[in-house]
Amino acid sequence: MTLSHVKIVGSGLIGTSIGLGLALKGVGVTMSDSDSRAAGLAQDLIKSPTSAPIDLVIFATPIGALNSVLDSEFLANPKAGFIDIGSVKSKVKVEVSTSKLDSKRFLPTHPMAGREVGGAESARADLFQGRPWIIDAQGVDADVVEAGVELIELLGGHKIDLDSASHDKAVALVSHLPQLVASLLAKQLSGAEQGWLDLAGAGLRDTTRIAGSDSKLWREIITANSKALSPLLKSLQGDLTALIASLEDEEVVSDFIEAGQKGRARIPGKHGGKAREYTYLPIVIEDKPGQLAALFDECADASVNVEDLTIEHSPGQFTGLITLALSKADAVTLAEHLRSNGWSVHSPRS
Amino acid sequence: MTLSHVKIVGSGLIGTSIGLGLALKGVGVTMSDSDSRAAGLAQDLIKSPTSAPIDLVIFATPIGALNSVLDSEFLANPKAGFIDIGSVKSKVKVEVSTSKLDSKRFLPTHPMAGREVGGAESARADLFQGRPWIIDAQGVDADVVEAGVELIELLGGHKIDLDSASHDKAVALVSHLPQLVASLLAKQLSGAEQGWLDLAGAGLRDTTRIAGSDSKLWREIITANSKALSPLLKSLQGDLTALIASLEDEEVVSDFIEAGQKGRARIPGKHGGKAREYTYLPIVIEDKPGQLAALFDECADASVNVEDLTIEHSPGQFTGLITLALSKADAVTLAEHLRSNGWSVHSPRS
Repeated sequence: MTLSHVKIVGSGLIGTSIGLGLALKGVGVTMSDSDSRAAGLAQDLIKSPTSAPIDLVIFATPIGALNSVLDSEFLANPKAGFIDIGSVKSKVKVEVSTSKLDSKRFLPTHPMAGREVGGAESARADLFQGRPWIIDAQGVDADVVEAGVELIELLGGHKIDLDSASHDKAVALVSHLPQLVASLLAKQLSGAEQGWLDLAGAGLRDTTRIAGSDSKLWREIITANSKALSPLLKSLQGDLTALIASLEDEEVVSDFIEAGQKGRARIPGKHGGKAREYTYLPIVIEDKPGQLAALFDECADASVNVEDLTIEHSPGQFTGLITLALSKADAVTLAEHLRSNGWSVHSPRS
Repeated sequence: MTLSHVKIVGSGLIGTSIGLGLALKGVGVTMSDSDSRAAGLAQDLIKSPTSAPIDLVIFATPIGALNSVLDSEFLANPKAGFIDIGSVKSKVKVEVSTSKLDSKRFLPTHPMAGREVGGAESARADLFQGRPWIIDAQGVDADVVEAGVELIELLGGHKIDLDSASHDKAVALVSHLPQLVASLLAKQLSGAEQGWLDLAGAGLRDTTRIAGSDSKLWREIITANSKALSPLLKSLQGDLTALIASLEDEEVVSDFIEAGQKGRARIPGKHGGKAREYTYLPIVIEDKPGQLAALFDECADASVNVEDLTIEHSPGQFTGLITLALSKADAVTLAEHLRSNGWSVHSPRS
């Protein structure tokens, strides 16, 4: 099958980004939305008109709005394939099973495309480039699966097969649980004296960064996936209760921290491989324009590949600490190179 | 007073770094340690011999080792001032009050100097440059306070006055609690399927980053500060229990996430000012050497100041998403500049 006309129901960031990406590949795109202004803006951005019959309908609405469009879209396009892009899959399958739409014509999918939010005006054709895009092809007609896979390929996504129940458990663990834990921690800062918060370092900033996320988006994801989240939160609650009871016991606290180290080590590094062992190289720079550029010029000169980095600032001061994550060999090379060029390089650590 | 000879008891990272920094400023330094190899290495690194009488003794041992050195150091140097550098202050004050050392001659301090660990060989003279260094001068003789302040100034630290009880509550909140929460979250990853962890994004990586920290160091800090930590953990436990009970209630979940946003917004930005409103500019780059350098060259060309950044990789793919945090004006300038030079810039978001 070759997609010639795709209808996208829902003209927010994801729907419009899909439309933009498809238009670039010459696929005809029709945008729609319950908000006609949003649909009009999206269609204006995308253009790509066509009179070909609709091959594929993509539901890009919030999960809660799905049941209001499933029946009408199926009745209007009885020959088309259907897919969705929701963050929680089991609930979507239930919605479809109680609609007029035949489950065999519906492919549940989830593009894991960054954390940007904000409507059609924020959409980008390259939003899915290199991002994982999960599909659950179980029991779905081959032509619909094929259309979904073609869509993912056209948009540069990275297809991953996962059944809906596993998907929901996986995202509960790697995405929804961290979200709630970050909010939980950040909430504890509410009553504190400002002077105390001025002492915050990179640790507090990193652990609470995602607590700033959109509450409208997340309340829907959390409630829709409460079944997969609940056992995880209860497990965390059990561990927390045990910790509180033994907070003065060095053995228990030590075992607890080591259990966390082991869990942390299971998170894969770059490129989805096993967690890589990076070497961390701390460098003190002056906090002014051009310093980062100069530093990365040195990295390029030394032909090393920076895998990750953090920037840390001290309160009231104008120097910054950059920590680069590198392979062990690159760290040695770069440290020598930087030192010989007068940079303030600290000892690498692993 | 001008420091002429400082004795440092404890030749680990902090003690040796203090010694290196003081030696650079011409102060005589004597290193000691219960491990004579460590003391020898530190003294070799530092040199800076002197025959002047000891003005100041710095306790740079783990808190648990303090009571074995307080009496002997006081008896050997009855005219000197004394300070310590421990991460928890109330417990140290109790140790001193039950020793022969007069509390008026002892200044409790805490240099908040990064997260590097690893003995004398990791020490750097510039470790304290621009870092907050807390002192509790209450009831301490003026000459001892003066010596402590001179020490901090010589090492380039940023002196902050805070009584010990407040200090312990502050670091419990901004440092020890995030540490335990990160371990708590990371511990939940232990039993998960590897395929699920392959879907992890920057959110999980950031929230668990500090869970990799040293358990020997942290078990001592946590148990020593259990009194300040306990109410914080119980408050978190209460919030968690309430959340679990209402996980399907959109109103409750939404309020919870908004409470987290408010807490998060209280963390100050760079330079200890009020939390700054950054604009975030996402840029897709090829994941190969030289790309970051090229990007920061563009930042320098456009004369913008990068306040913070994150790097995100997709599993199995060789493109990366860089998100730069900038002032709003700089984000607009840079986005235009990069686009006109062919970079793949996404829409900025705040």
